[in-house]
Amino acid sequence: MRALLQTGAALVLAFGLASHAVAGTADALRQQALASSEAYAILESLTTEIGARPAGSEADARAVAWAVAKFKALGYDKVTTEPVRFTAWRRGAESAEVTGPSPQRLAVTALGGSVGTNGDLHADVVAFPSLPALQAASPEQVRGKIVILSQHMERRRDGGGYADVLPMRSNGASIAARKGASALLIRSLATTDDRLPHTGSVIYDGGATIPAAAISGPDADLLERLLLRGQPVQLRLNLQSTTLTDQLSYNVIGDITGRELPQEVVMLSAHLDSWDLGTGAVDDGFGVALTMAAGALIKRQPQAPRRTVRVVLFANEENGFDGARTYAARPPSELACHRLVLESDWGAGRIYALRHPPADTALTKQMAQTLAPLGIALDGQAGTPGPDARFVAERKVPWLQLAQDASALFDHHHSANDTLDKVDPAALAQNTAAYSVVAWLAANAPAMPCQP
Amino acid sequence: MRALLQTGAALVLAFGLASHAVAGTADALRQQALASSEAYAILESLTTEIGARPAGSEADARAVAWAVAKFKALGYDKVTTEPVRFTAWRRGAESAEVTGPSPQRLAVTALGGSVGTNGDLHADVVAFPSLPALQAASPEQVRGKIVILSQHMERRRDGGGYADVLPMRSNGASIAARKGASALLIRSLATTDDRLPHTGSVIYDGGATIPAAAISGPDADLLERLLLRGQPVQLRLNLQSTTLTDQLSYNVIGDITGRELPQEVVMLSAHLDSWDLGTGAVDDGFGVALTMAAGALIKRQPQAPRRTVRVVLFANEENGFDGARTYAARPPSELACHRLVLESDWGAGRIYALRHPPADTALTKQMAQTLAPLGIALDGQAGTPGPDARFVAERKVPWLQLAQDASALFDHHHSANDTLDKVDPAALAQNTAAYSVVAWLAANAPAMPCQP
Repeated sequence: MRALLQTGAALVLAFGLASHAVAGTADALRQQALASSEAYAILESLTTEIGARPAGSEADARAVAWAVAKFKALGYDKVTTEPVRFTAWRRGAESAEVTGPSPQRLAVTALGGSVGTNGDLHADVVAFPSLPALQAASPEQVRGKIVILSQHMERRRDGGGYADVLPMRSNGASIAARKGASALLIRSLATTDDRLPHTGSVIYDGGATIPAAAISGPDADLLERLLLRGQPVQLRLNLQSTTLTDQLSYNVIGDITGRELPQEVVMLSAHLDSWDLGTGAVDDGFGVALTMAAGALIKRQPQAPRRTVRVVLFANEENGFDGARTYAARPPSELACHRLVLESDWGAGRIYALRHPPADTALTKQMAQTLAPLGIALDGQAGTPGPDARFVAERKVPWLQLAQDASALFDHHHSANDTLDKVDPAALAQNTAAYSVVAWLAANAPAMPCQP
Repeated sequence: MRALLQTGAALVLAFGLASHAVAGTADALRQQALASSEAYAILESLTTEIGARPAGSEADARAVAWAVAKFKALGYDKVTTEPVRFTAWRRGAESAEVTGPSPQRLAVTALGGSVGTNGDLHADVVAFPSLPALQAASPEQVRGKIVILSQHMERRRDGGGYADVLPMRSNGASIAARKGASALLIRSLATTDDRLPHTGSVIYDGGATIPAAAISGPDADLLERLLLRGQPVQLRLNLQSTTLTDQLSYNVIGDITGRELPQEVVMLSAHLDSWDLGTGAVDDGFGVALTMAAGALIKRQPQAPRRTVRVVLFANEENGFDGARTYAARPPSELACHRLVLESDWGAGRIYALRHPPADTALTKQMAQTLAPLGIALDGQAGTPGPDARFVAERKVPWLQLAQDASALFDHHHSANDTLDKVDPAALAQNTAAYSVVAWLAANAPAMPCQP
């Protein structure tokens, strides 16, 4: 009994010391991240030296090489690449104009994955205020026409307005095609009045495929005003998009090897590819930069984390989630050692909430306490693992969300305006601080039970 | 003596009554303009039914027909067109990209009047922070290169930051050409971080002509960051611009005929043409709409003005001021009857100041009193007649300025972003009120002496 008590006291003491050191390092990480411009330097490097990097392009290959070199330069213990195969899509020349009654050019861009128009497509337009309105339309209203879906997107802190309009972009073309439409134009899923169209994936449902493109908000307004005049409105649309099967890119993975449980992984993730229109600073250079910088900060602490901290930069998130699918296709035994996954892919805003915290209450409390000075609170909302991480989460890997303010995200998202100047270095540092703290605490927790 | 006194009293009485009626109508005009959406409806019509209308284009011809029909529909007493001949300029396909060390596309647009590149132009770049820095450079630094002028524009209420950077656009190409440059790229004269380039005229000084274009702010930033790395930066530039000599358009002129002095003219002006990138809502659909609406409001008052109120919509302001030059080339005898000229061509902001008021102190006082409820004050600054009206003012026609808040003008000016949604209907109504009041008071003043 006495021996047992002594052992217990020693354990408590040891745990207490360790816990104290872990908490101290967590505070130090937070402060170092806030004072550091390292994440911004990584983002500056990626957006300046690589720029737009659509999956499978020459620039994507350069981005992979850049990421490998950057992980190594940052001192990661192990850097690997994981092949990812997919069908790539390439934008070609694209143009649209009102040809009657009053000729005017429109700012247009093909949706990712859209088929081309095979030369000029001329047709009358028919507009619907929403996808349900199109669904309710008769084929007679739609046949042979270019369908316009013109729903506006709502600006919200959580970016939830995107979910309201996303089906318009994802499913609009297939629904319009089934009613005999010749093409689909959507009002850009955006919260800005910039004359720049916003791209994003179209999903064909297996039926007929028709060309699908986005026009800018002001152009959607223009068509709406022309149609209100009661005269037929004719458009010319030309999209020279192509697809390339069996393309190759890579997930790029950097590990800070755990000192006690190296096979157990705490995983931070983002995606390396971007759309072709901007330089992918916000989407998702921001996530790339902060996860790489968070791992590098942890690496520089006096003691390595108990578990491995892994940063995964996924291939081709934008047009198929192929990197995440490939990663999540690991054997169950390997994913069983993944103790936590986080993803940063929701813009460049500050983090305000910790959601879906670990099942370990003490760990959650410690995270919340360490994040509080960053203005981050447990707000009790359900959260979401993120577009790529959900494939890993679906394999029963615990996840948590550091929820960002997405109020400004859809001003620039998926458009030519996604450039470095849209990123606030202080917000990037705050995000880096939060990810490094959470990764460090999770990687050092006594146990990281799976969540149900 | 008694008769004289009686006559004097009668005159005072008559003048007092007339003055009271004039002031009452001025107040009514202000209130009616503020309550009316007529100017906005005119602007909506022009930008929706015509859109971009570069001088000499098919759309410009449609705009002229639109203006004639609109003046008539608004009840103007007399509508005339005045032929204007000029050399027009047409934008062709245009593209630019960094080809080394890290290939990336740039958002580029040719400056108005620029020669084309005659196929792809490949060259190293050399950047200068300002025009004086280029002027100080040796030909060895510049020869064969694409010169970048990267000065930032300052946001100011009076829009005065434009004057600071304008020589970069106007004169940069000729200065660079004399030192042997192969082309000029300028940072857009703009106050926004939008990834849209802003066009505007280049002026060749008679020496060698080289292609000249603008890149967006974020692209100028990108080139600056690439150059900071110390490696040569190569670009490919392709501009397929052309010029067309002896083109024809028209000044469109609407008169509200004066009841007592019809040969005396109070002139409100704006320009009908626009750049080709946007729909010319701010520049200068705003001016077109408010001057047309101001005249129409005056026409609807119980009594016609003593003098003629004339609205002149000039042709080809943007690329040569040819309409204004043509108008101002009238015989001196005709211009001698012009009692006042005003121009609206400085964006879509509210008016805050009355400048260069009439020499008639009583009239100025009356204008200031009537404008005060609109937030417009005599601020004692010198003012400027405006880019077109100055040609008329140079012919000794008195002018005044209703100075607008131009804080936001250079976010959209000369870019694809110049669309209807950028116009605040309340600001347009406030401008309309001010122009209608000033025109009415000037057209009814007992005498309108010439200013020195």
